[in-house]
Amino acid sequence: MAKPLNIGMIGYGFMGRAHTNGYKRVCDFFPELPYRPVLKAACARDAAKIQAFADQWGYESTETDWRKLVERKDIDAVDICVPNNLHKEISLAAAAAGKMILCEKPLAMNVAEGEEMCQAVEKAKVPNTVWYNYRRVPAVTLAKQLVDQGRLGRIFHYRANFLQDWTISTDLPQGGTALWRLDAAAAGSGVTGDLLAHCIDTALWINGGIADVGAMTETFIKERKHTLTGKVEKVGIDDACAFLCHFQNGSLGLFESTRYARGHKALYTFEINGEKASIKWDLHDLHRLEYFDHGDESNLRGWRSIHVTDGDHPYMGKWWVPGLAIGYEHSFVHQVADFLDSLGKGVPCGPTFRDALETQKVCDAVLASAQDRTWKKV
Amino acid sequence: MAKPLNIGMIGYGFMGRAHTNGYKRVCDFFPELPYRPVLKAACARDAAKIQAFADQWGYESTETDWRKLVERKDIDAVDICVPNNLHKEISLAAAAAGKMILCEKPLAMNVAEGEEMCQAVEKAKVPNTVWYNYRRVPAVTLAKQLVDQGRLGRIFHYRANFLQDWTISTDLPQGGTALWRLDAAAAGSGVTGDLLAHCIDTALWINGGIADVGAMTETFIKERKHTLTGKVEKVGIDDACAFLCHFQNGSLGLFESTRYARGHKALYTFEINGEKASIKWDLHDLHRLEYFDHGDESNLRGWRSIHVTDGDHPYMGKWWVPGLAIGYEHSFVHQVADFLDSLGKGVPCGPTFRDALETQKVCDAVLASAQDRTWKKV
Amino acid sequence: MAKPLNIGMIGYGFMGRAHTNGYKRVCDFFPELPYRPVLKAACARDAAKIQAFADQWGYESTETDWRKLVERKDIDAVDICVPNNLHKEISLAAAAAGKMILCEKPLAMNVAEGEEMCQAVEKAKVPNTVWYNYRRVPAVTLAKQLVDQGRLGRIFHYRANFLQDWTISTDLPQGGTALWRLDAAAAGSGVTGDLLAHCIDTALWINGGIADVGAMTETFIKERKHTLTGKVEKVGIDDACAFLCHFQNGSLGLFESTRYARGHKALYTFEINGEKASIKWDLHDLHRLEYFDHGDESNLRGWRSIHVTDGDHPYMGKWWVPGLAIGYEHSFVHQVADFLDSLGKGVPCGPTFRDALETQKVCDAVLASAQDRTWKKV
Amino acid sequence: MAKPLNIGMIGYGFMGRAHTNGYKRVCDFFPELPYRPVLKAACARDAAKIQAFADQWGYESTETDWRKLVERKDIDAVDICVPNNLHKEISLAAAAAGKMILCEKPLAMNVAEGEEMCQAVEKAKVPNTVWYNYRRVPAVTLAKQLVDQGRLGRIFHYRANFLQDWTISTDLPQGGTALWRLDAAAAGSGVTGDLLAHCIDTALWINGGIADVGAMTETFIKERKHTLTGKVEKVGIDDACAFLCHFQNGSLGLFESTRYARGHKALYTFEINGEKASIKWDLHDLHRLEYFDHGDESNLRGWRSIHVTDGDHPYMGKWWVPGLAIGYEHSFVHQVADFLDSLGKGVPCGPTFRDALETQKVCDAVLASAQDRTWKKV
Repeated sequence: MAKPLNIGMIGYGFMGRAHTNGYKRVCDFFPELPYRPVLKAACARDAAKIQAFADQWGYESTETDWRKLVERKDIDAVDICVPNNLHKEISLAAAAAGKMILCEKPLAMNVAEGEEMCQAVEKAKVPNTVWYNYRRVPAVTLAKQLVDQGRLGRIFHYRANFLQDWTISTDLPQGGTALWRLDAAAAGSGVTGDLLAHCIDTALWINGGIADVGAMTETFIKERKHTLTGKVEKVGIDDACAFLCHFQNGSLGLFESTRYARGHKALYTFEINGEKASIKWDLHDLHRLEYFDHGDESNLRGWRSIHVTDGDHPYMGKWWVPGLAIGYEHSFVHQVADFLDSLGKGVPCGPTFRDALETQKVCDAVLASAQDRTWKKV
Repeated sequence: MAKPLNIGMIGYGFMGRAHTNGYKRVCDFFPELPYRPVLKAACARDAAKIQAFADQWGYESTETDWRKLVERKDIDAVDICVPNNLHKEISLAAAAAGKMILCEKPLAMNVAEGEEMCQAVEKAKVPNTVWYNYRRVPAVTLAKQLVDQGRLGRIFHYRANFLQDWTISTDLPQGGTALWRLDAAAAGSGVTGDLLAHCIDTALWINGGIADVGAMTETFIKERKHTLTGKVEKVGIDDACAFLCHFQNGSLGLFESTRYARGHKALYTFEINGEKASIKWDLHDLHRLEYFDHGDESNLRGWRSIHVTDGDHPYMGKWWVPGLAIGYEHSFVHQVADFLDSLGKGVPCGPTFRDALETQKVCDAVLASAQDRTWKKV
Repeated sequence: MAKPLNIGMIGYGFMGRAHTNGYKRVCDFFPELPYRPVLKAACARDAAKIQAFADQWGYESTETDWRKLVERKDIDAVDICVPNNLHKEISLAAAAAGKMILCEKPLAMNVAEGEEMCQAVEKAKVPNTVWYNYRRVPAVTLAKQLVDQGRLGRIFHYRANFLQDWTISTDLPQGGTALWRLDAAAAGSGVTGDLLAHCIDTALWINGGIADVGAMTETFIKERKHTLTGKVEKVGIDDACAFLCHFQNGSLGLFESTRYARGHKALYTFEINGEKASIKWDLHDLHRLEYFDHGDESNLRGWRSIHVTDGDHPYMGKWWVPGLAIGYEHSFVHQVADFLDSLGKGVPCGPTFRDALETQKVCDAVLASAQDRTWKKV
Repeated sequence: MAKPLNIGMIGYGFMGRAHTNGYKRVCDFFPELPYRPVLKAACARDAAKIQAFADQWGYESTETDWRKLVERKDIDAVDICVPNNLHKEISLAAAAAGKMILCEKPLAMNVAEGEEMCQAVEKAKVPNTVWYNYRRVPAVTLAKQLVDQGRLGRIFHYRANFLQDWTISTDLPQGGTALWRLDAAAAGSGVTGDLLAHCIDTALWINGGIADVGAMTETFIKERKHTLTGKVEKVGIDDACAFLCHFQNGSLGLFESTRYARGHKALYTFEINGEKASIKWDLHDLHRLEYFDHGDESNLRGWRSIHVTDGDHPYMGKWWVPGLAIGYEHSFVHQVADFLDSLGKGVPCGPTFRDALETQKVCDAVLASAQDRTWKKV
């Protein structure tokens, strides 16, 4: 019989919804888990808004001060869904209170903060994970399995990009609840922490560590009205970022992210070229994995479009029948399932804070490299 | 404040899970609905299995006799998720008991049964709907809107197919809980009622009535072991079915379904060619709609691949952000939402039993045409 | 050293250009052939136009009466590129004169004409071939090889369509040099002979004979101005045609063609589903073959998109390097190459007149079936 | 009446064939040109091989010393199809002899050579062009037109790659007639000059000058047997190269090329993101252009797949009918056509030597940047 795990959610935005949906659905589809999430409390400064969120999603209670939530005895795990500049402070308090922590990505504003956070959770010995959810898209998990099985052989190339187009208008303001991602003070960086961090997490997971980087960033629109001050202010974030790198296994990496790629809403793609095989994935069609196997007969070789919806594909045995796709939100359900499973087994659930710190190191090196136009070791 | 609507679920298979998921999720994403489903009771003959299902999904109680469930005072709506040969009897009893009915497709074993069912619900004046869920895939709904807006102009062609490959092995038995779809006594027909009925429902909805049909069916594997008798028995269902037809609007139709199309798990596609524009859709990539507009500048015309994930696409404003796909199961959430909304408004929620009877008429005409190799009026 | 083969070309339209290009290019890429085509004479009734054609393409002389051309001693092979209603008369004369014949498709206006033509060439023992050029698209040839090798196993389904959209405007006239394809007196039929004949030829070649057909035709625009008479006249051709059929090997066939499918310029596609594998092809991307092999590991199965441009693909060793595509016109070069090669070997070059008569039989049965709405044996 | 233009071809390899095919076919499809190429002489050191080439393709005579060919009075234009290390010397001699020059790309071994070549042809006032043939693929030309028309608005991003997989095997030797591209002494560089040069030429043409670059190169296989010496020698070329850059118009560039991308034979792709629209192209499907227009109605926006085969697409009015694709080789036919047309008009035919020198400057800056890991101005 599954034991209850009381969740305290901080935040109620896009990610607050996505995580909550994960908690609510997981036991319907993964009934054998040792724990079942209980929506104990939701927290935000705006009392009316957090109450409305709690009502809609079924949280039992609300708080308007995250410090109170973190201290509550009836909370087992704290979920941090607030802007990046609050991750550290909340994490430190939650760890000190002995709470498990599920923190939105990126881990922190920078490596120094991240290191402090890692030490806190490790000292407190609390289970911790960071929501790099794309690892749990079945096609991405399958890609990881194929590489781990050695099917690609020696890896030569890894390339990834994350392209969006939602900030092209000069009329869009920066800052505030809706647009904190455009405000350097709240977000730390622009596309690097918001989008490239996803690409980097996946890459480190699948292809191992990155040794050095050479990067370029750009802010296309230099000034935007700030929602909080009402004034036109300098834009501090990177609108676009691209970098070259060497992986420790000798393969070459090429990463790019932007919010100025007209026609792409959320095009996260990666491709890995190995001696024996190659794989490609695209978030816009997340239920497919493209696979090229040089071992196929020479005149019948071609990129296979694998519809990752069969019972023997990662996670898919839990859902419907072959051919019927799941969507974006399911990656969060899977992360909750894996987290609960790892609790039962007493093992870490990757990416842990420590794992996510590696991504943070790459992000910091990328931003530093772009700053002074030199290559940086990670 | 949403009023409770007590659901009585009969069945616990693939569709039982899909509908239940719809009931459980709808209010998280459609919080303004006038009703909220309550999982009151689940029913099946096997007490242990239905209890396990109820425990997993959160039904408050169980029954092992559908007649009892139908009579329960605390049940508002009966959901019929059992093989086709039971639809009529349960519907008649539920209607007589004044229950709303949500019935799995196809409506009935044949037109005669279906007509009886229509009369029962209409006499009882109970809200009723049939789970032709694909109408509520956002891309399909968008297709309907485009045709209704006249963007395609005069329609010349409608073609649809539903291709699967899961029954090719001769070792597969027929009948029983898992494989009743292969048993003519339980299913009525093979791909015609199981798969083509979906294609026909969508077609009638978007392109209007079908006037006549010329059809062909085939049973590739003539005998299979029957799960219930343990004996090798003649296969009574159609493994494949294709038909030509005329729509009442003068356009030509071409429909095909099979479970012997190696490489296709659940490839439901349709294409509509109009004087001014054409559209295509494919269940394997259900979040996309292909659209060709002859009104585009001549040298820049091309099929547009619309990623149907924006806030101004049908239903999508309720989910995530642009670029992030939903999946198969969401079509059921949408049907629940529309059903609850229609209850509040006191209007029918299509496809009603009467609507679904039109699909049944086409199916019967198709099977009759294949039988004696002549064209049949619908 | 290749011997000269003197070509007499009758006609100078689209096909006249395509064939001529084939003759002119073949020896550059197939230098080992036993014969080399010589552009001896071109013939058409309009002296100025045929002279201009001859000048542009390099024909040594011109004729304005095909009977003279057929009688010329210096002509070895007659190429018939005129409307269908002239194929028989020219073929009979050419055969009587002992000339080889390369005749545009379809073979004839009907089976009776075709039978007469077959008897003529067989009696005269002259090499003969019909320009069903799509057999020689490398991806199509590869498809044939895969089926012949038994890689698909038992065939269940064959479906093909040929969709165009160029006659939708009611302003388009019928008849005359440019639009004889819309004139029943010159073309015999509409899409059936013009487009479906291609689909049928490929199908018979790859999947064997067709036993019976059930068909439907439509003429969407009933009257058009006739170019020759200047009057609005009834349209006698079929604008669209679809048919169901049984192949002799037990597989089911589904064929459709139309010139009213907005968005498709020349979309000839076919798909074959076998027990072990399936293949798909599309003229719009003619250098690719889609292949699904059920023998692949279960979790890595997917449709392979084979870029048919490698040296071990049919014909491709003669062209460029892997990855570089050839186009439509090369199918004619290949047919010329195969014809010249077969001359050297003294064997027939398919499709011969006799092979093409089989396609004609299916076309006639299709039109007859559509006429009285009954199934017809072929 | 077209005047003859006597061609002297130096080389007989892959490019020798491709150019010759261009010369032979151009007048069939572009009959109105003011000049017609005459295959006067072909030249190579190996007398037997060049004679065989001349016989196959129809050159009137042969030479074994390029200096003699360049001096021949009956030669109007010299076509240079030999390894890169010979481009300069031949060009200087040809210019001194007053010959027009059509030189294979890249222009030279480095900028210094290229500058000398430019001065030579400019001093001699001889028409000159470099075979960056991809500019003349109809879809690429269309892309150029769209950007020039301002349809994309401000450009934010340009990314291109050229991926191959043919040198992955360690058994492949370097050097000699077949594999001079792997020999630094003959080729100057690896993928940078061979493949990236194409990407750069297209980019400069469409998006304007490049201001600076930050690059990375790699040689995955460090030693290969040399065909000429028979010994295992160090590999001097770059197997892979990637670079970041800024265009002068403020847009960001990202370029990558490799011969170690398993699954890609010759995947040259580029994508341009502008404020108002974006375009994508892929050599593997060279007859298509992907186009996204933000001006489309918001719920019907999507990437359009334009089948660039209509009469109003660049060059396509000369070929077949809509829907029927041309291939790789046609880009050379178009370049010949444009060269002959420009001769008649007395204007340069881009890319001239001077244009190609700009590409050379970028290549040199890229290699220098990769060498010392710093950004370089171009």
